Amino acid sequence: MADDKLIIVNFWPSIFGVRVRIALREKGLYFDEKDEDMQNKSPLLLEMNPVHKQIPVLIHNGKPICESLIIVQYIDEMWNDRVPLLPSDPYAKAQARFWADFIEKKIFKQLEGALGEKVYFGDDMFGFVDIVLIPFYMWFHTYETYGNFNIGVECPKLIAWSKRCLKRESVSKSLEDPNKVYEFMMSYRKKLGLEY
Amino acid sequence: MADDKLIIVNFWPSIFGVRVRIALREKGLYFDEKDEDMQNKSPLLLEMNPVHKQIPVLIHNGKPICESLIIVQYIDEMWNDRVPLLPSDPYAKAQARFWADFIEKKIFKQLEGALGEKVYFGDDMFGFVDIVLIPFYMWFHTYETYGNFNIGVECPKLIAWSKRCLKRESVSKSLEDPNKVYEFMMSYRKKLGLEY
Repeated sequence: MADDKLIIVNFWPSIFGVRVRIALREKGLYFDEKDEDMQNKSPLLLEMNPVHKQIPVLIHNGKPICESLIIVQYIDEMWNDRVPLLPSDPYAKAQARFWADFIEKKIFKQLEGALGEKVYFGDDMFGFVDIVLIPFYMWFHTYETYGNFNIGVECPKLIAWSKRCLKRESVSKSLEDPNKVYEFMMSYRKKLGLEY
Repeated sequence: MADDKLIIVNFWPSIFGVRVRIALREKGLYFDEKDEDMQNKSPLLLEMNPVHKQIPVLIHNGKPICESLIIVQYIDEMWNDRVPLLPSDPYAKAQARFWADFIEKKIFKQLEGALGEKVYFGDDMFGFVDIVLIPFYMWFHTYETYGNFNIGVECPKLIAWSKRCLKRESVSKSLEDPNKVYEFMMSYRKKLGLEY
């Protein structure tokens, strides 16, 4: 499948789009990215995700896959001859999916406990849950500023884990600069006439 | 795995618990069920799902699996030598997961279009998306009464599909009587002092 054509329809500050980038890079796959203007969505996005009209969409040889958790699982199953992102054991897989789903719903505090003393959420192996969680790192600075929540103090294990993740090229190349995200949010709030 | 011990911790009107019942019955598995009092949750539920404290929980040989979509996927993968609930092709699987996820978020109208002229959502094969959607059937009568929405008029294909599903023993044995659900909701609203 060396001639696979992969395009991510994305919006650069999106945590969800970063998951897709990391998963593709973990599998060693080359991809292009189209950055969307969310105020003025492209005909491509509307055609590829007519149901939700949301990014990210992965277009694989012309066929769209939507919803970041579903995309990451698709990537894992389509390229299952490469490094796995989910464990093969059904129970371990259900647990990984549980934490991924949990991250979608509420975050941080209980994850600190779930991580415990492990290197990654999948023990020694970087995988699905790590991919789902690490993109939040680029928003940490913004959360701390606007959210009045010191992640370093509240969740030291998560911070240590995020540093380990950032040593992987798949992660460091995929995340946007936290300061760039912060500036983006600042200017966005200003535009909306909010205090900052 | 003839000596597998399977218990569903459930609350009988739950749409989510019915999904688990159907999936187990499609695989031909025997299970017990513990009905919860949601006003006074059991120590078992709190121990088995300490994160969300929600039903359903599947307890398989003492190990808990939580969240209905995750449970159904677990059942499919653990007993993968029996009738499959998800297609094996990664793209078809991503599409099935997309619609299951969509059902979790918004329902009915677009599903009518997704079903089209197919027998089941998985074409000729009853599967994951059908399991995720059909439990809503037992709430249709209540939705129509309280929701001022005529499902039969708005979604005739869905109604025809639900009749086909109900012919399967895994489904008919797992759903509760829609009238019982309606009575339950009536008495619940009365208890809350709402009009009915």
